[in-house]
Amino acid sequence: MSDGPAVEAARVVADLHELDRRTGGPGGAQRLCWTEVWREARAMLADLLGEIDLEPERDAAGNLWVFLKGEREPALVVGSHVDSVPDGGWLDGALGVMAALGVLRAWAGSDRRPPRSLALVDWADEEGARFGRSLFGSSAFSGSLDPEGVRGLRDAEGISIVDALAENGVDLGDALGATSRQDRIAAYLELHIEQGPVLEAEGVQAAAVSGCAGVQRHRFRFRGQSSHAGTTPMDRRRDAGLAAAQVALRVEEVGAQHGGMATTGSIVLFPGIPTAVAGEAELLVDLRHPDAGELAAMLADARAAAEAAASRRGCEFEAESVWAIEPIPFDAELVAMASDACREAADSDRVLASGALHDAAEVARVAPTAMVFCPSIGGISHASEEDTAEPDLIAAIEAFGLLANRVLST
Amino acid sequence: MSDGPAVEAARVVADLHELDRRTGGPGGAQRLCWTEVWREARAMLADLLGEIDLEPERDAAGNLWVFLKGEREPALVVGSHVDSVPDGGWLDGALGVMAALGVLRAWAGSDRRPPRSLALVDWADEEGARFGRSLFGSSAFSGSLDPEGVRGLRDAEGISIVDALAENGVDLGDALGATSRQDRIAAYLELHIEQGPVLEAEGVQAAAVSGCAGVQRHRFRFRGQSSHAGTTPMDRRRDAGLAAAQVALRVEEVGAQHGGMATTGSIVLFPGIPTAVAGEAELLVDLRHPDAGELAAMLADARAAAEAAASRRGCEFEAESVWAIEPIPFDAELVAMASDACREAADSDRVLASGALHDAAEVARVAPTAMVFCPSIGGISHASEEDTAEPDLIAAIEAFGLLANRVLST
Repeated sequence: MSDGPAVEAARVVADLHELDRRTGGPGGAQRLCWTEVWREARAMLADLLGEIDLEPERDAAGNLWVFLKGEREPALVVGSHVDSVPDGGWLDGALGVMAALGVLRAWAGSDRRPPRSLALVDWADEEGARFGRSLFGSSAFSGSLDPEGVRGLRDAEGISIVDALAENGVDLGDALGATSRQDRIAAYLELHIEQGPVLEAEGVQAAAVSGCAGVQRHRFRFRGQSSHAGTTPMDRRRDAGLAAAQVALRVEEVGAQHGGMATTGSIVLFPGIPTAVAGEAELLVDLRHPDAGELAAMLADARAAAEAAASRRGCEFEAESVWAIEPIPFDAELVAMASDACREAADSDRVLASGALHDAAEVARVAPTAMVFCPSIGGISHASEEDTAEPDLIAAIEAFGLLANRVLST
Repeated sequence: MSDGPAVEAARVVADLHELDRRTGGPGGAQRLCWTEVWREARAMLADLLGEIDLEPERDAAGNLWVFLKGEREPALVVGSHVDSVPDGGWLDGALGVMAALGVLRAWAGSDRRPPRSLALVDWADEEGARFGRSLFGSSAFSGSLDPEGVRGLRDAEGISIVDALAENGVDLGDALGATSRQDRIAAYLELHIEQGPVLEAEGVQAAAVSGCAGVQRHRFRFRGQSSHAGTTPMDRRRDAGLAAAQVALRVEEVGAQHGGMATTGSIVLFPGIPTAVAGEAELLVDLRHPDAGELAAMLADARAAAEAAASRRGCEFEAESVWAIEPIPFDAELVAMASDACREAADSDRVLASGALHDAAEVARVAPTAMVFCPSIGGISHASEEDTAEPDLIAAIEAFGLLANRVLST
């Protein structure tokens, strides 16, 4: 059987460089969602779509869609996001959008219609870098967004999310109107950089992604007694900061023991001065695992460690859930097809779980979904240094194109 | 021999309550130096001195002095500071000033002149709560103040220390003029609350202080690699925050092992967000010991621990000295006399080193000095809850008065 027209990977890379030239540069990508530079990125995308006679449309949440009519409905949707964090990388999100454009371009330039309709989507505000709410557009599409829950958000300059959305033609109260396109989607595929060091370390050019790890993010609060650093004997202290330090080290062990990720990226002490024993401490604990049972066990272990450390140091302990998402496995059949495509295009059998969240995790709630990852040099993303070796980019784009064409035929 | 007229301790306590009523209250003492409330406290002190026909004078650093002429020169100086931290305690500093006033009042009301001149001093800006430079007035007196080193300091509202001093009639450039009074001082005695829990725990009402512990305060910086909390495997992290946490716990052990105080009251992580492994961490390490050799050993142990933790976690480490002061032992003979007075007035043989700094540490550079401590309930100070049981206050004031009278006779 024919797999359909091959994506021109070199052109996709050239588009990415041009996008970076226009909306990024040496200081990093500046495509912060709902801003002028982000709109410039979308204008460039619209120009490129215009070259193949396609015109994008917007849904109620600000997601950009374009449909290439095929022989059957509903459509295979391919895409990602063009928005970036400030001073971000040139590939995070943009790779998946430009690769999706490459797939559409290949079909638009062929003498055949695709066996089923093919759509590109550019999800709005994946990063949440401005208002702190990531996956905005894709969660509006899946219906998991609670518009009232985000209505009070403001950016660092005090601008309300409501006003920023309105400036971009989006009425927050109507955002769930984006769910109406769920009927038009048969499956969703997304190519993304790994944003971690695993594939590079293993010499893998492209890998199928089995799903997104679940996340349990908690604020652990320890309350001891602030006292004078010079006059409180060591054995009479109730040092909340040391309780937090002890738990941070234990959380690291919990991650390793369960084969998950466990991070304590924020510790804040009160009063936080050198001359006082810390009377209070807040530790942010971020736990991730693709298996729900393991994730729950990690949380239980971390909590038990916190209770023990607090008790030993005469501190009170309380935990508050900051955010949580269950593990989201992708569609088994699509993951297998993605693995096949990676084997053929990149000689790779690697299947890994994503520890980062992606729009695909939201789409997976309502449609069969899979992803392909390519390596990130040094595991670095969300920084201007973010990069992927060009042969790896090419191989991953080709694997993604192959996968898309095969799914189109299902 | 007669010890001279006894201090009326109950009157001292009444003066302290009145001072608290005028310049503090339920929210705590508000005698922040160089402010209106601090000037009110000094005005009350001047009124009380006026009742015994004494008029205070000011030196070039804003210290308040009053001399009661005796049979010999130079003078025994007794005092402390009336300034407080914001929302501070009613006794910290004020106790020593009012007790000193009590000693002067007893002699002024007797039919004898003291065997040597007797002076009260109220040191300016002991706390350094507004501009971050403690022991201002006493260090100007001792000559250890570097006026140019503090000239750039500003308070939280941006007001310059130069302007705040000028508002109080002090020209920073002339502050070292306060050293001229060194000639007039034979010895210095100060009564202060312990600001720690030791005396209360031991049931001691008053204790002689052998000296002030030395302090080594350092900023330990760890530089690892910030990376994504969801995608960086546990065994590939360079977590600077965990290096700092490990060192904080080790610093605690160092304090206990050397019989000193070791505190890590501030840990700051960068970027300090839950979704990123901390790429940088700053730990403030405050080490105190009355013995210079032990203090140096504590610092060496803490640095070695930091180097080991940094190396193990692939982090760079550097230490920067923030502040240091050598241990300052008080005058052995005066300490022995203080101990005798505490035994007689309060049945206590306890002699302890101060982990907190006091004006007495500055005065000890230029004159024989000793201190007496009374207990702090719960070890609490620098807070509105600061308190001492009234029988303990009375006993300590009486011990201090006895000590002052005996030193006057030397």
